[in-house]
Amino acid sequence: MKIVIDAMGGDNAPQSVVEGAMLAIESLKQIDEIILVGDQDKIKPFLSNDNKISILHTTEVITADDEPVRAARRKKNSSLVLMAKEVKEGRADACLSAGNTGALMSVGLFQVGRIKGIERPALSPTLPTIDGKGFVFLDVGANVDAKPKQLLQYGIMGSIYSEKVRGISNPRVGLLNVGTEEGKGNELAKQAYELLSHAPINFIGNVEARDLLDGVADVVVTDGFSGNVALKTIEGTAQMMFGLIKETFMSSLKTKLAAAVLKKDLKQLKNKLDYSEYGGAGLFGLAAPVIKAHGSSNARAIYNAIKQTSHMVENNVTEVIETTVRDMKETNGGQE
Amino acid sequence: MKIVIDAMGGDNAPQSVVEGAMLAIESLKQIDEIILVGDQDKIKPFLSNDNKISILHTTEVITADDEPVRAARRKKNSSLVLMAKEVKEGRADACLSAGNTGALMSVGLFQVGRIKGIERPALSPTLPTIDGKGFVFLDVGANVDAKPKQLLQYGIMGSIYSEKVRGISNPRVGLLNVGTEEGKGNELAKQAYELLSHAPINFIGNVEARDLLDGVADVVVTDGFSGNVALKTIEGTAQMMFGLIKETFMSSLKTKLAAAVLKKDLKQLKNKLDYSEYGGAGLFGLAAPVIKAHGSSNARAIYNAIKQTSHMVENNVTEVIETTVRDMKETNGGQE
Repeated sequence: MKIVIDAMGGDNAPQSVVEGAMLAIESLKQIDEIILVGDQDKIKPFLSNDNKISILHTTEVITADDEPVRAARRKKNSSLVLMAKEVKEGRADACLSAGNTGALMSVGLFQVGRIKGIERPALSPTLPTIDGKGFVFLDVGANVDAKPKQLLQYGIMGSIYSEKVRGISNPRVGLLNVGTEEGKGNELAKQAYELLSHAPINFIGNVEARDLLDGVADVVVTDGFSGNVALKTIEGTAQMMFGLIKETFMSSLKTKLAAAVLKKDLKQLKNKLDYSEYGGAGLFGLAAPVIKAHGSSNARAIYNAIKQTSHMVENNVTEVIETTVRDMKETNGGQE
Repeated sequence: MKIVIDAMGGDNAPQSVVEGAMLAIESLKQIDEIILVGDQDKIKPFLSNDNKISILHTTEVITADDEPVRAARRKKNSSLVLMAKEVKEGRADACLSAGNTGALMSVGLFQVGRIKGIERPALSPTLPTIDGKGFVFLDVGANVDAKPKQLLQYGIMGSIYSEKVRGISNPRVGLLNVGTEEGKGNELAKQAYELLSHAPINFIGNVEARDLLDGVADVVVTDGFSGNVALKTIEGTAQMMFGLIKETFMSSLKTKLAAAVLKKDLKQLKNKLDYSEYGGAGLFGLAAPVIKAHGSSNARAIYNAIKQTSHMVENNVTEVIETTVRDMKETNGGQE
């Protein structure tokens, strides 16, 4: 398989991207070639081994500050747009970027296109849980005005991904809601509940936001607005607590000494919450795997995202989603 | 003023409620009388001083497990329903319960009733921020299918409360959204943004969930679904982190010793995040102050909630909301 990567996206680009790609070629034998898209003068200094790695040269870049949709449309020679074109035109099987999320969603939708039958793609990260297993959370912002049927499709896509790529058999799919009882929630949640109940997945009903990190489900489905709020609330709360802990530790000589003893253990705690270990966020529902790696990805995080991308290709996640959605439609006599 | 309290609501009832009421009578001179509603045989053992405190006896109770709307309708002699009746029939100025939130919303709406012009009440807690000032967050679940105009009203109510009760001049009102730029969000957020921009408040635009605890605004407005998700995500993330920290500390003799040194400081950290210090959650938009104290309230938290309730009465929050909403309507020639 061939994977194409936007070498210029992310806070540590192109260094971390190039290093991550070399790591991937070294250990992931299923990958035949990685194409790095970007400025060759900036890429080459880090490319100490170009075995199975080629460069598609361009100097145009979409930055984190660019207005996503406009940039995706106008910067036709940007590394991100050219990356997506490689997939669109069949020269690569999947693509990956740590750059501007909105622009990636845009090029994904307009260049790579949707899977037949899928209404809207969903941005789908895997978040950490206390038991270290993690859960797939979708949608976290691709589609802020979701419809019940779209939430149903998220449940199906998340379930297939968890089974095929994460190796979880019969993954538990939950619906994010304001209470666990059936009948809870807004109109969207109530109607999505009904649809999910009849889907060919292991739907376990409503789950509450306070139980997300406890691993209450393997897949949690919600609309892009609530999902974005939940994701950013987790980030903000964790960040604030680490800040307060640090402040506590630095408050006196006594606490500083005690903190020094705990340093290594607290570092491990921080790693436990680091979701780059779980790979990037898939844009599920597109006609080929499109992966968003975290903006602050280091080489290791890029490597993990490439591994995840390769597993999606290897296990035909896109095809399985397409077939499942088509079969559901047929079972319902053309009605979805 | 007279405040009526459901003595049987909450995990530590009636003890913490009775003790909190006695504390309030001792230090809050603006309160002329507190009426405790509940089982006198259970209340009296804790009522060591009944100065200005009376008991309205009833043995029926709505429990945390009762289905809220049904319980509020059927348990006509429950402490919660009788409490609301005291307000409805003018024998008390405000009411307070640490019991079943849904049932309190129900009796609030059907017994106390709405302020004229307010479409839907909003459950409005004050949450902690890193600088210790806190912010008012509404709605966290009273109204899960909110309309743009209702979000506008939340902004007005939150602003008035912050100014009158929390003593913040010109409070900054933000709209919870998926990005800070204008034009972001779902249809609801976009339309609410437009309305809030023209309201007689200090609207500062969109705020993101990751900045909530940083004190990005004094009032944050959202629909009851997203608000509930954000609130419970904060709770879940903080709880998980305290759990992991504890686990880290208990992992070896070395870490146990270091943790012992830090114990007091970490306890303070936990207190910093304890929102019972900020009083209870107001049900803004009802025709009299109705306050929900946290279910796990101790006497101190109940005292704080009573203090908050008395400030709402003292500063005529209900009347100011009613006048403001009426004036807005008149300014717009009868159109809101």
